[in-house]
Amino acid sequence: MVGRGVRAMALTPSQTAEITQQRDDQILTRRPVSFGAEELLFVPHEVLDHGFVRMVDYMGTDAAVVQAARVSYGRGTRRASDDAALIRYLMRHRHSTPFEMCTAKFHVKLPVFVARQWIRHRTASVNEISARYSILDKEFYIPEPEDLAVQSTVNRQGRGDVLDTSRAAEILCWLRDDAERNYTHYEDMLNENPDGTRRDPNQQGLTRELARINLTLNTYTQWYWSANLHNVLGFLALRADSHAQMEIRVYADVMLKMIAAWVPHTHSAFLEHRLQAVTFSATMMKVLRARLQGEMIDFADSGLSLREWTELQEKLHPTAE
Amino acid sequence: MVGRGVRAMALTPSQTAEITQQRDDQILTRRPVSFGAEELLFVPHEVLDHGFVRMVDYMGTDAAVVQAARVSYGRGTRRASDDAALIRYLMRHRHSTPFEMCTAKFHVKLPVFVARQWIRHRTASVNEISARYSILDKEFYIPEPEDLAVQSTVNRQGRGDVLDTSRAAEILCWLRDDAERNYTHYEDMLNENPDGTRRDPNQQGLTRELARINLTLNTYTQWYWSANLHNVLGFLALRADSHAQMEIRVYADVMLKMIAAWVPHTHSAFLEHRLQAVTFSATMMKVLRARLQGEMIDFADSGLSLREWTELQEKLHPTAE
Amino acid sequence: MVGRGVRAMALTPSQTAEITQQRDDQILTRRPVSFGAEELLFVPHEVLDHGFVRMVDYMGTDAAVVQAARVSYGRGTRRASDDAALIRYLMRHRHSTPFEMCTAKFHVKLPVFVARQWIRHRTASVNEISARYSILDKEFYIPEPEDLAVQSTVNRQGRGDVLDTSRAAEILCWLRDDAERNYTHYEDMLNENPDGTRRDPNQQGLTRELARINLTLNTYTQWYWSANLHNVLGFLALRADSHAQMEIRVYADVMLKMIAAWVPHTHSAFLEHRLQAVTFSATMMKVLRARLQGEMIDFADSGLSLREWTELQEKLHPTAE
Amino acid sequence: MVGRGVRAMALTPSQTAEITQQRDDQILTRRPVSFGAEELLFVPHEVLDHGFVRMVDYMGTDAAVVQAARVSYGRGTRRASDDAALIRYLMRHRHSTPFEMCTAKFHVKLPVFVARQWIRHRTASVNEISARYSILDKEFYIPEPEDLAVQSTVNRQGRGDVLDTSRAAEILCWLRDDAERNYTHYEDMLNENPDGTRRDPNQQGLTRELARINLTLNTYTQWYWSANLHNVLGFLALRADSHAQMEIRVYADVMLKMIAAWVPHTHSAFLEHRLQAVTFSATMMKVLRARLQGEMIDFADSGLSLREWTELQEKLHPTAE
Repeated sequence: MVGRGVRAMALTPSQTAEITQQRDDQILTRRPVSFGAEELLFVPHEVLDHGFVRMVDYMGTDAAVVQAARVSYGRGTRRASDDAALIRYLMRHRHSTPFEMCTAKFHVKLPVFVARQWIRHRTASVNEISARYSILDKEFYIPEPEDLAVQSTVNRQGRGDVLDTSRAAEILCWLRDDAERNYTHYEDMLNENPDGTRRDPNQQGLTRELARINLTLNTYTQWYWSANLHNVLGFLALRADSHAQMEIRVYADVMLKMIAAWVPHTHSAFLEHRLQAVTFSATMMKVLRARLQGEMIDFADSGLSLREWTELQEKLHPTAE
Repeated sequence: MVGRGVRAMALTPSQTAEITQQRDDQILTRRPVSFGAEELLFVPHEVLDHGFVRMVDYMGTDAAVVQAARVSYGRGTRRASDDAALIRYLMRHRHSTPFEMCTAKFHVKLPVFVARQWIRHRTASVNEISARYSILDKEFYIPEPEDLAVQSTVNRQGRGDVLDTSRAAEILCWLRDDAERNYTHYEDMLNENPDGTRRDPNQQGLTRELARINLTLNTYTQWYWSANLHNVLGFLALRADSHAQMEIRVYADVMLKMIAAWVPHTHSAFLEHRLQAVTFSATMMKVLRARLQGEMIDFADSGLSLREWTELQEKLHPTAE
Repeated sequence: MVGRGVRAMALTPSQTAEITQQRDDQILTRRPVSFGAEELLFVPHEVLDHGFVRMVDYMGTDAAVVQAARVSYGRGTRRASDDAALIRYLMRHRHSTPFEMCTAKFHVKLPVFVARQWIRHRTASVNEISARYSILDKEFYIPEPEDLAVQSTVNRQGRGDVLDTSRAAEILCWLRDDAERNYTHYEDMLNENPDGTRRDPNQQGLTRELARINLTLNTYTQWYWSANLHNVLGFLALRADSHAQMEIRVYADVMLKMIAAWVPHTHSAFLEHRLQAVTFSATMMKVLRARLQGEMIDFADSGLSLREWTELQEKLHPTAE
Repeated sequence: MVGRGVRAMALTPSQTAEITQQRDDQILTRRPVSFGAEELLFVPHEVLDHGFVRMVDYMGTDAAVVQAARVSYGRGTRRASDDAALIRYLMRHRHSTPFEMCTAKFHVKLPVFVARQWIRHRTASVNEISARYSILDKEFYIPEPEDLAVQSTVNRQGRGDVLDTSRAAEILCWLRDDAERNYTHYEDMLNENPDGTRRDPNQQGLTRELARINLTLNTYTQWYWSANLHNVLGFLALRADSHAQMEIRVYADVMLKMIAAWVPHTHSAFLEHRLQAVTFSATMMKVLRARLQGEMIDFADSGLSLREWTELQEKLHPTAE
């Protein structure tokens, strides 16, 4: 998490050099260019204690959405205000295919348990580093003390109060020690030097595809992840949401800012008509319409379950988070 | 079909002007650039009598495939020869995910019956001009006389000999007259001037979504079609094949050339390991291995059905097409 | 359309006999059974003038949705009321994966222009009769006079008033004559008897894959269409909607009733939380919350575009359709 | 692995009772029934030390494939021999859509690292037990000593010789101890009794979504997994292959036997035309055709890379595995 204490470098000097070189190379193209996306291209944005997200390529701009919706020949920009209005219309009415005409590609470093949630979004392309083939780095996600919370009693998938300092310290100790020990044994099983020779020449090395099973779920992995804009937004709608686990939400939050730079009209239409939009069921609408006509319907007469009633109140009068 | 007689212009002067302007605009980008793709960007390649394909955007190059396969930081170019070898390896062993890291977008004008075959490739993004919303142009596919063939007797989905001249003339006459008449009635039903006013002020105009049902299947439509490289190749593997209907194959052939310009290593690996590769069933392999050891197995002992036996001979001794 | 005058039989006697036999065969199974679905299995429900939908197979019941959501061992039925509440919860919060655990298969006969809209729903499996391989039947969709409407002036994709009788008669005449003539020429081009011999022994027959291009877009085709419950609902959410073209909506309406019989809890949750639910944008919610607190915000202060303002009024005070 | 020593029961008595009851319930259905599938329905087939696969539902039979290919009305069974021949033809020519008309659903218990490979097959439906919501059982995959192999030197993703007994013992000790310790700390962090009360009333319990990150990658999870037959075969083509990691291949092998019972014609066509089929590249075919004409082409003249040459020899003269 940016700004929360000292953080290990996620990149080696040679990786940083490669990235700098990529950013320095600029070439002429006939393709539509998003100046906002160009600004952030290749730069790793740090997430959690060792992770990052960086946009490494993209296709299309807001204008591509407009062009596809109109099936027009040129770049689709008549007036920027028309484009924005059309994009809002498409977003509001869930005309999703024009948004599929833009694509982004990200390079992400993330803990395995986050990767397991992320991969459930199936309409995306993924190339993950293979622990059958490569040796994973010694990097684990260890939460900040202020992120260690008790189990929520109202939401079985949520967090309640922050743990007491001493309890947090105890748990962090377990997390660190167990991850360290398991990684050490992983290395012992592999018995391999970086150049492929045996570390202890008298010992055999276990095959990588088995040694890795000793690693913990907070070990970092990395992948290239590419999806069209419609599917990127589908991912963000679920993962930039307050119900998402914090450790994946911080990735979604960074990506949402990248989307804002890349396709600003689409981004603001997405916030307005999707991420911050509110849906009411048929029965909730009855209650709502009655209220607007001055009629107060209480729970007993609402036709809603208690859970739905509570959700209705929350929709109408959201509490600050 | 290029070079087969005079051909109506597929584009209006204003469309041509828009395309020229797109090609003239060149902007600096940090993204990987394919010089081959840049050369052909936006240019319509004519197909059939009124159709075209033009590549209008792309993401990635051969190097992106390599980079994803290695999950590496930089552009993935060590030595071009290594890249080519890795791409061949990936293609041969059907490691498809790295090819998903490139995407292309095409603008295509095509007859409706071709669009109906094309759309069966589901893992692609499509925005088609809507005949509920717009009035379709008066353009139909009329085959060249030399493309009018009798029904094949050996392949229920194929073509045999070319029709006699007089029979061809009769059929072309029907095709032209019926398409013309149906389009005239389409206009009569709509009763609309280009500015939206009524053509005949005393007549009502039928809603567009119904008037269009009178059009013939050879009417031209157009769409933006985008897919990642893996899925583009999947399309080409089926549609650039000799068993595909000629009228879709000519589109696939043009696109295959565009792929060659855009990602040349992937293109040659695709030809070598997929489009021109040959697969033998388990039983065919037994026959083949026996032959290589000098043993001649005839049909009766082969364990193959007659159809499979014929296919085996064709695989081993292909006849020129 | 059921009940709107005499209708040609969509099925031949031998097809009807096959269907009757299918319904008579009953076999013991260990699989979960939906009695509602069993009742309607194989029966063709007539749609439009020659079309039909029939459910021909299914997997799963409401209990399968519950079982998957709980990842439980048994059939997942504790108490029916719990199941219904869980299904409503899943639908409300867009937890879509449990609904993917049910699958349905339909056999549909439909006009080509309807098939073209339908096929845009990509996450489904389709096997369509091939006009490259088979000869299509002489059946076209001809609308009822009361379905012939003028182009809507407020909605470029919609219908306005019904046409005058004489104008409707003229248009129906064109539709009938053109479809008939084009089909007659299709037969003339093919020059084929049902047994494959030439009709006119002195004439050549054009290959089927080309002859079909003379047919009109209202020609009937047929297919097997299968999708999981989540994707069936996605199709219905768009096509059972009032903005869908009437000619596809009548298919969706029939299928929606089949869903009600097959998975009744899912069906009622779908109506309540999706089909009849209403979504408000972030800015609309500000207007709404202000109103609930007695503050009247007018258009000028709303921050909404005129189009959005109109949509908001329609959401709050829907006009009867 | 079946038959390799004593194995902990994967199911509790109450789960076994539920399964027995499911199998005893038999109900009449009008749907096509596969007697082979009915035989094995719900029965867990043990895999690895604590895992299992059980087929829990299916839709369709071999006849459904035939029916879809013919778009016919009845059950599609003329003569069983015709059906088998058509299915072989469809498989050989990669006509995949008819196979999408069958669907199967499996309940699987598997280690997390296997789940991570499995989930890469995207065109399937999955509901996994959530460790944000539930507490995972204390079950880890510990390999048999004879499965502990050294890293292969020829294949970076493969296994070489089995480890020496003493080295294997040391590694198994690490695997067991680390998994046990990490699980104990997981429980300590949660501090929860089965009834939800605190184990140690003076200690706070960490939220489940964080405690789980301490678990090792060999921890067992479980899911419901459903896919159509085409995609099930796609999964098996990769995972029942000798290059797949043994720990996922044993699942694929069990599922392949279930497919044999469910859709026997499709199963044998799959083995013949896909799993045991062999593909040669364009250049390999040149070498092969020359050899069949008695011409011996050696490596230098083959136009193949050394790697391709080796692969060609292996295709022609496979070594026993």
